[in-house]
Amino acid sequence: MNQFGVYGMGVMGQSIAKNIANHGYSVSVFDRFFDVVQKYQSTIEKGQAIQGFTQVEDFVASLESPRRILLMITAGKPVDIVIEQLLPYLKKDDIIIDGGNSYYKDTIRREQYCKDQGIHFFGCGISGGEYGALVGPSMMPGGDEKMYEYIQPVFDDICAKAKDGKPCCTYIGKDGSGHFVKMVHNGIEYSDIELICEAYQLLKAAGFDNKEISTIFHHWQQGELNCYLLGIAAKILLVKDEASREDLIDCILDTAGQKGTGKWTSQEGLDMGVPLPTIAESVFARCVSALKEERIQASRILKVELPIAIDKEELLEILPKALYSAKIIAYAQGFSLMHHASKEYNWNLQLQNIASIWRGGCIIQARFLQDITSAYTSAPDTVNLMVSPFFAKILLANDSALRKVINLAVNNGIAIPGLMSSLNYFDSYRQSRLPANLLQALRDFFGAHTYQRVDRPVDEFFHTDWETITKDFYQ
Amino acid sequence: MNQFGVYGMGVMGQSIAKNIANHGYSVSVFDRFFDVVQKYQSTIEKGQAIQGFTQVEDFVASLESPRRILLMITAGKPVDIVIEQLLPYLKKDDIIIDGGNSYYKDTIRREQYCKDQGIHFFGCGISGGEYGALVGPSMMPGGDEKMYEYIQPVFDDICAKAKDGKPCCTYIGKDGSGHFVKMVHNGIEYSDIELICEAYQLLKAAGFDNKEISTIFHHWQQGELNCYLLGIAAKILLVKDEASREDLIDCILDTAGQKGTGKWTSQEGLDMGVPLPTIAESVFARCVSALKEERIQASRILKVELPIAIDKEELLEILPKALYSAKIIAYAQGFSLMHHASKEYNWNLQLQNIASIWRGGCIIQARFLQDITSAYTSAPDTVNLMVSPFFAKILLANDSALRKVINLAVNNGIAIPGLMSSLNYFDSYRQSRLPANLLQALRDFFGAHTYQRVDRPVDEFFHTDWETITKDFYQ
Repeated sequence: MNQFGVYGMGVMGQSIAKNIANHGYSVSVFDRFFDVVQKYQSTIEKGQAIQGFTQVEDFVASLESPRRILLMITAGKPVDIVIEQLLPYLKKDDIIIDGGNSYYKDTIRREQYCKDQGIHFFGCGISGGEYGALVGPSMMPGGDEKMYEYIQPVFDDICAKAKDGKPCCTYIGKDGSGHFVKMVHNGIEYSDIELICEAYQLLKAAGFDNKEISTIFHHWQQGELNCYLLGIAAKILLVKDEASREDLIDCILDTAGQKGTGKWTSQEGLDMGVPLPTIAESVFARCVSALKEERIQASRILKVELPIAIDKEELLEILPKALYSAKIIAYAQGFSLMHHASKEYNWNLQLQNIASIWRGGCIIQARFLQDITSAYTSAPDTVNLMVSPFFAKILLANDSALRKVINLAVNNGIAIPGLMSSLNYFDSYRQSRLPANLLQALRDFFGAHTYQRVDRPVDEFFHTDWETITKDFYQ
Repeated sequence: MNQFGVYGMGVMGQSIAKNIANHGYSVSVFDRFFDVVQKYQSTIEKGQAIQGFTQVEDFVASLESPRRILLMITAGKPVDIVIEQLLPYLKKDDIIIDGGNSYYKDTIRREQYCKDQGIHFFGCGISGGEYGALVGPSMMPGGDEKMYEYIQPVFDDICAKAKDGKPCCTYIGKDGSGHFVKMVHNGIEYSDIELICEAYQLLKAAGFDNKEISTIFHHWQQGELNCYLLGIAAKILLVKDEASREDLIDCILDTAGQKGTGKWTSQEGLDMGVPLPTIAESVFARCVSALKEERIQASRILKVELPIAIDKEELLEILPKALYSAKIIAYAQGFSLMHHASKEYNWNLQLQNIASIWRGGCIIQARFLQDITSAYTSAPDTVNLMVSPFFAKILLANDSALRKVINLAVNNGIAIPGLMSSLNYFDSYRQSRLPANLLQALRDFFGAHTYQRVDRPVDEFFHTDWETITKDFYQ
C-alpha cells in the first residue's frame, strides 16, 4: 500500500509526486493516458517509490487508509468530473485535495458535497510553478481542521522552507479559504509584476539600456525590494535572442496574457466592497496591452508633444522608494481583502501565518514579507497594513519620492496605473473627510437614495426634497 | 379593455403609469397591496384613464391583445416570481417588459424562457429617476425586434425628447442588450459623479467656499461640461440645513452607498478584458469612503506634511479642461465596453443611437452627448471615442491642463482616482509599445505561459528555458 496519491500527470503533478517521493513517502500516481504514465515512470530515479496507474480503481486501491489523493488537474469542470470518478471507490474519511487554482466558491460547494458523502475535501493553493512544485512550493490548504493532521506531515515536508526554517505551509481555514488565499496571492502577484514593468518603463524612458536596468534591479535586490520577481526580471534583461543576438526582451511582443485569478481577485474586491485599485489597475493594464492594434492606431492620432526629460540620477534616487511604497500599498489591499473575507466567511484567517508561508516557495516571495509577518504577529487585528507602525513609517519617509515619480511620469506621458492607484489609495485612505458627501447629496437628489449626517447617528437616514427646494435656483 | 399594463406601484411604477395615461393611453395598474392601489387611485387626475387591480387574473384580463405589461418591480428574484405568476393568464404573443435594473444575463435567460412558452420578454433600461419616469425618462428596450412595433408608439410618446425633438428611446437589440446598455449607463454615471466630486474637493482645497463652488459649477454649465449632474451639484451647494442654517452639504456624511450597477459594469469589463479603469476606480472610491472609521484612524497616523498651495486662478483655468478630458476618456471606456459586448453577443448595437437617447431624460444627460452622437454617426465603427477626430482634438488641446491638475493634486495630497485613471488610460492606450514584453517574459519564466514575438506572426507562441539560460547570472 502506498502512502500518498497524485491524480494528474501534468508538469505540476509530475513534479509534486517526485517531491513527495523524495521525502521518503511511497506515491501512487494516476493519469488516464497510459503513455504519459509510462513516460513518467522512465524518469523516476532510484530511491523514488512511485507507482503508476491508469485505472482509477487500482489507483485508489493502492493507497492506505485514510486515503490522501492530491488532484493536480485543470481547475473548473474537470474537478467535478474527477470527484465523481473517485467517489465510488473511496471509503469514509478518505481525503481528496484539490491542488489547482480552483475558484474558492466552487471549493466551498465541493467540500460540502463530499462531506455529505462522508469524504473530506481540501482546497489547497499551491504556488511556485513547476520548479517550486519539485523542490518546495508555498502551500495554502483549506478544509476540515480535524483532518489536517493526516495531511500536515507530508505537506510540511514537501513545501518550501523560509529563511528561519519554518515550513511555507500552514492550515488556512475551513472550506474554500485555501483557494481564496491563493487567489489573493495571485492578485498581489499581478500588482507586483505591474509595478516592476512600470519601473522598467520609467528607467527605459530615462535612457538606461537593458543591461543597465538589469544592474539596477540586481542592486535593488540587495535591499528591501528583494523579491523573486525582481530577481528574475534582472536576469531576463540579460538574455540574448539566439538567432539575432539582440536582447531577447526587445523581441518579445508587449501583449500580456492572463489566466483569470487577478480578475477574480478584483471582482471579489468589488463584490465585498473592499477597494483593490492597484490590483484592478494591474489587470486592466494587461487588457490595454492586449489592444496592440488599437494602440498602434492611437499612437498616430494621440501624439502629445512631451519631450522626455528625466534626470537619471534623480530617478535612481526616488524610484526604488516609490516602488517600495507602492508595493506596501498593494499588499495592504490584498491583506485587507483577506481581513474582510475572514469575517464574511468565518474563516478566522491568521494573516501572520499567511504572510509567513509566502516568505518562500511562491511567486511573490519577498524579503519584506518577513516584516509583514512581524507586523501581523505583534498586532493580529491590524485592519490595514498601511497603519501598522513599521510600514506607516516607511510610507511617510518615502512619500515625497512616490509623488515625485508620479509627477515625472505624468509630465513625460508615461502610463503608471500601478504607482498612481497606489498613491490614490493611500491619499484617500488617510483622509478623514472625502468628497463623498456631495456624492450622497447627488444620489439623494436624483434617486432619493437618502444620506447620513455628520451630526447624527449613522443608523439614521435622511432625505431632502432637493427638487422642490432648489427649483428657483439659477433660473 | 385597457391598452397598457403596469405591474408594481412603487414610486417609479406610479410615475410611469401616469406618464403613459397622460399620453392618452388607458392603463391597468397592479399591486398586490389593496391600500397601495387605493391610495394611488385617489391621486389620479381627471383625464388619466388608470384602472387599479389587486388580482393578477383580473389585471391581465383587462388588457387588449397582444397584452403589454411593464414590470416596475425590484430586480432579482421578484422578476422570476412575477413571470411565473403572469404566465398562466397570458396568451401567445403577449409581451412582458422588465423596466427594472435587472442583470442582463438574467434577462437573456428570461427572454429565452418566455419565448419557449410563446411569450415575448423585453428588458428595458429606464433612467431618469421618479421625476423622469413621470415627465419623460431615457429608455433602452431590448428584445425581439419583430415585436418592438407593439411597444414603440407608447415608448416614443412617454420618453424624454432631445433638443432636436428626437425621442430618447430606441430599439437597442435582442435579449439582454437593453439592460446591458443601462448597466453601462450607470457605470458611466459612477465616473461622472466621481469626477464632479474630485473637482469639488480640489476647489475646496484651493479655498473656495460652497457658494463659490456652486457659482463655478454653474458657470461651467454654460459650456461643454453642461450636464444634469453638474447642474444639480451647483444647486445642492446652495441648500441650507433647515435647523442650523449651515450649508447642508457640510452636514452630510462622506460615506457613499451603491446599488451595484457600477460594480457590475466593472466586473463585466474585467470578464470581457475591456479596460474600464475610471469606472472601477469610481466604484472603489465609494468603497474607500465607506471605511469612515478606518479613515479617521489612518488620518492620525499617516500625516503627510504637505502645506496646501493651490493657485485659485490657475485652478479655474485648468480644472474645467481636465474635467472635460477625463469625462471624454471615461465615456470612451463605457462605449468601448458596448462595442465589445455588441460583437460578443451579436447585438449589433448602434452606438450613435445609444448616445442619442442619452441626450435627454437620463441621469448622465449632457450637452457633449450630441458630439458623441455625431462622432458615431459619421463613423459607426469607431473602436474608441478618444481617436475620433472631434474628441482627439480636445484631448490634445486639454492635455497639459489634465497633467497640471494631476501634478497639483499629487503635490497637495488629494486623492483623484477618477482623473488619474483617465490619464493613465489615455497614456497607455496611445502607447504603441508598453512594458508588457517584460510582463510576458516574467510569466514565461515562472509559469511557462509562453510569449509572442514582435518579428513573428501573432499566432506563434514561444517558450524560453529561462531557468537554465540564466542559472549562472548574478551568482
